[in-house]
Amino acid sequence: MILKRWLVGDPIKTAQAANERLSKTIALAIFSSNNISSVAYATEEILLVLVLAGTAAVAWSIPVSVAILFLVLVLSISYRQIIYEYPEGGGAYTVAKSNLGELPALAAAGALMISYVVTVAVSVAAGVAALTSAIPSLHEHREALGLVAIFFIMLVNLRGVRESGAFFAVPTYFAIGVLGLLVGAGTVQSLFDSRAVPLPINPTGLSGELETLTLFLILRSFAVGCSAVTGMEVISNGVKAFRYPESKNAATTMIWMSIILGSLFMGVSWMAYHNGILPKAEETIVSQLARLTFGTGSVYYAVQISTMILLVLAANSAFAGFPHLASILARDGFMPHQMASFGDRLVFSNGIIILGFFACLLLVLFEGDTHALIPLYAIGVFVSFTISQTGMVYSWLKRKGEHWRKKLTVNGVGALTTGIATVIIATTKFMDGAWIVFLLVSILMLMFRGIRSHYKAVTEQVGLSRDSRPPRPRRNLIVIPISGVNRSVVRAVDYARSRGGEIRALLVDVNKEETALTEIQWAQWGCGVPLIVLPSPYRSILGSIMDFIEEQRQKDPDCWITVILPEIIPARWWQNILHNQRALMLKGALLFKDRVVLTDVPFHLSR
Amino acid sequence: MILKRWLVGDPIKTAQAANERLSKTIALAIFSSNNISSVAYATEEILLVLVLAGTAAVAWSIPVSVAILFLVLVLSISYRQIIYEYPEGGGAYTVAKSNLGELPALAAAGALMISYVVTVAVSVAAGVAALTSAIPSLHEHREALGLVAIFFIMLVNLRGVRESGAFFAVPTYFAIGVLGLLVGAGTVQSLFDSRAVPLPINPTGLSGELETLTLFLILRSFAVGCSAVTGMEVISNGVKAFRYPESKNAATTMIWMSIILGSLFMGVSWMAYHNGILPKAEETIVSQLARLTFGTGSVYYAVQISTMILLVLAANSAFAGFPHLASILARDGFMPHQMASFGDRLVFSNGIIILGFFACLLLVLFEGDTHALIPLYAIGVFVSFTISQTGMVYSWLKRKGEHWRKKLTVNGVGALTTGIATVIIATTKFMDGAWIVFLLVSILMLMFRGIRSHYKAVTEQVGLSRDSRPPRPRRNLIVIPISGVNRSVVRAVDYARSRGGEIRALLVDVNKEETALTEIQWAQWGCGVPLIVLPSPYRSILGSIMDFIEEQRQKDPDCWITVILPEIIPARWWQNILHNQRALMLKGALLFKDRVVLTDVPFHLSR
Repeated sequence: MILKRWLVGDPIKTAQAANERLSKTIALAIFSSNNISSVAYATEEILLVLVLAGTAAVAWSIPVSVAILFLVLVLSISYRQIIYEYPEGGGAYTVAKSNLGELPALAAAGALMISYVVTVAVSVAAGVAALTSAIPSLHEHREALGLVAIFFIMLVNLRGVRESGAFFAVPTYFAIGVLGLLVGAGTVQSLFDSRAVPLPINPTGLSGELETLTLFLILRSFAVGCSAVTGMEVISNGVKAFRYPESKNAATTMIWMSIILGSLFMGVSWMAYHNGILPKAEETIVSQLARLTFGTGSVYYAVQISTMILLVLAANSAFAGFPHLASILARDGFMPHQMASFGDRLVFSNGIIILGFFACLLLVLFEGDTHALIPLYAIGVFVSFTISQTGMVYSWLKRKGEHWRKKLTVNGVGALTTGIATVIIATTKFMDGAWIVFLLVSILMLMFRGIRSHYKAVTEQVGLSRDSRPPRPRRNLIVIPISGVNRSVVRAVDYARSRGGEIRALLVDVNKEETALTEIQWAQWGCGVPLIVLPSPYRSILGSIMDFIEEQRQKDPDCWITVILPEIIPARWWQNILHNQRALMLKGALLFKDRVVLTDVPFHLSR
Repeated sequence: MILKRWLVGDPIKTAQAANERLSKTIALAIFSSNNISSVAYATEEILLVLVLAGTAAVAWSIPVSVAILFLVLVLSISYRQIIYEYPEGGGAYTVAKSNLGELPALAAAGALMISYVVTVAVSVAAGVAALTSAIPSLHEHREALGLVAIFFIMLVNLRGVRESGAFFAVPTYFAIGVLGLLVGAGTVQSLFDSRAVPLPINPTGLSGELETLTLFLILRSFAVGCSAVTGMEVISNGVKAFRYPESKNAATTMIWMSIILGSLFMGVSWMAYHNGILPKAEETIVSQLARLTFGTGSVYYAVQISTMILLVLAANSAFAGFPHLASILARDGFMPHQMASFGDRLVFSNGIIILGFFACLLLVLFEGDTHALIPLYAIGVFVSFTISQTGMVYSWLKRKGEHWRKKLTVNGVGALTTGIATVIIATTKFMDGAWIVFLLVSILMLMFRGIRSHYKAVTEQVGLSRDSRPPRPRRNLIVIPISGVNRSVVRAVDYARSRGGEIRALLVDVNKEETALTEIQWAQWGCGVPLIVLPSPYRSILGSIMDFIEEQRQKDPDCWITVILPEIIPARWWQNILHNQRALMLKGALLFKDRVVLTDVPFHLSR
């Protein structure tokens, strides 16, 4: 407990909750790191695909990047509308649930959950890659570095929202500034110095065999480039976390995020193309650009370190979003109720821990490799984009309202664009891992429905109606199992006598001499409570007691049996190993008998 | 439970216990395998040391073997006397306790316990070596093979004594027969064919550098050769398991065991010397002898397989001895009471499982290597030998009695011989692992005394005396924590009302609306029981309830508080994950409060 307090801080009162709301400046830092950090890998993913068709094909990176920029524009406008319509937050799940029905909503929820987990894994893996580009000797420790980073972010998040906001704002803005400097300086350089660096004909790290530049290849590069727009939906899920007026503040933050993302992404793509930079296994594109622009000096290291921190912090947006989504699902009965409960620092501790666990698992399974994780990443995000945009289209068609045609058009274009992107990603990346997402989404949907149907069954079973009052116990038999006479037993007998009823002590006859001795002592200390000696041919104390109770239960169906257990509680936990675990086993066995009530009378040892 | 029954068989009644006693034939098989199986490695260990001083030094194996044969003679005569004096069994611990006092007794017990564990590990490792000598491709899997063997013996032992006796008698006698055939045929061959095979000057597997043949080296070879007499004490620990007359039967069995051990061990040592056989890393001495005598045919494989089975079964004697010793210690309060209780098949299940666990641990730590384990082995056994012989010497000096001078001489010679052997082993093998045994024995002794002092403290605290009757509860406050109104809560309230007393329901105010709703429902279903709404600024339900209970406890020191928990029990175990673990946490927290009694009223879901 002390360790927990030290790690996560003191509990916060509910009344303080309003103060935990975020200003736009801090919200931009928390919610945008996921989105903006994709600048670090999106261009690289595009180039990695195009270069398969030779260095000439690399020129296609510019039109592909422009297409993705268009996607950013469409998404920011359509999500702005969602933010105003759903100020309670919830994103794709909420939108789909109120407009499309349960199944699409659960599909969106499943896809979102998976993409939160992948976000953490991808961002941390890419962040570690930024670090190892600068310090190549760390390359072999990338998995361990990733795990440490995830653990660190988990801890910070368990400390609570606002603190993590302040904690993250400075490095996020610093990283945006440094990346802006890189893109700015690089663009200026490219305007004045118009040298066209000749591309190497067969760059290192690529096999001699080249693919033909087909439309399919270009679409594949577009599909992986779509990883740039992941994280656009994070703000719409977290509108409630903003200060009043929530929607307006969230929408403004959304626009700023898109502008930053768009300019950085286009800048990196342009610079890479202009300078003829190609992807390498050991060094990221951004690292190569920074080296080229600033030389391997302090500015270069500032770019790498801040990119790394930005990426690691990007994982943080998932730690804000995932537990929030889980709690919304839990409130609707699709996730365990525990997920809906605030931890004592006003955050959803259970969700944070689960997310951290699965992200670590993914990082280990994919050996900390960003490229291997990308196919899992984009597909989940785009499925949820498409579902939420489609939901908005249905909503406008149903509700109409002011300017509905204009709004319908915006979301319609959004639905169409993201739908096409989803189909492209699914077809070009299916075998590379997108199938895993479809499989997991199906499993999650089954799980959600299974959980809800359990809760429904429970509600029906425990629900009250005027004529459902359960029968009251007519008779109470009190049973005290003993194995000898001592202060603990005397205390249990005294307690039983103070509460009244038919009391019987039970002694299992394992050893004739001990039984005889106990009977003599009982005559003195038993206060007239009858002692029943049970035979035990098999020396099973538990079995004999259970048989007796079962017999009494069947003899009189109106009778309730209260088992009073005299329990000796050692002063120190490890002393438990020196005491028979019989009480525990009896408790376990009795828990499953109807009309049997278990009462523990503890006797505390002082040493 | 069904799995357990299938693996270990049906329970056996106490009345059947007498039938579980062993005949001499079966007892010899059970108790001698440990002792006789050492033939498989003792000669090899002697040669491994001597060969360090070159092949000429190997001739010393004969005098060393004769010295060990003398040890066998002395031990069998002195243990025969112990068997008659202590028909209850218990060996070194019992003898030392009644003659030398508590500390030597605990030292003997500790040494014996360790050597039981090592016996299992050494025997299984050597058994696996016999197998891999015949099938070299299995060499790399020797650890896994060893673990499987230990698990198998554990299972057989959990099934009960007599069955394991019958199970083991056939292969034990078969192995003794086959080894007898090997020694017999080999000796006959060596008499007729007096060729002296020239020893290779620098045998394979040895480094070029030779040690000088010193007295120290010869003593070292004697020390490791002492592993041959391990297991001599097993019968004296288990006299009670023999049929009437126990002592006489046990003594006869002891003599037979010594004769078999002596002739097989001398035979193997002689044959190895006569044929100029030297130890190899991949093949055991016995395997080389069998190949030489019978050729690599079916008789060779019979020798290897039966040696292996004999060794694996040798581990079995430890599974009979260890739990028995543990139960004797438990009865004296030096081990947890659970160790004294019969499992339902009349064996000491706890001890068997603990022994198996530690033997597996040792096997893994020492990578399944017999030679590395030997130093641990001999020292523990000889410490207990020396203590028990010394105990007998004290006993004759104190009690005198018939022929006491003769008996004193026998045990005196025993004490002296084993004492010298102990000193030799301790000095020559201290750094090789004997120090671990001394360290562990000290730790075990501390543990034994710690356990006993805990039980003493418990007895003092729970003991009854005429004026120690604890105060009876004057007032009973019944508290029912609820989080809403449902059938489970109504059932708990009805139960509480049927038992009478001051009843209060407790509701923690986490959410204003839910609290208001519950208050309305309570008016209808609460049957007039007052509902106390507790504020909860930190949303900690557990904390608020605990605070309330603590307050009540302090207000009235004569008042007992009964907490009635309405608990919903899911139909299937995995559904527990979908329910709040609040009940469990509350139970855990309440267990440590004095004058607080916990009552569980279960409500069973059917689906």
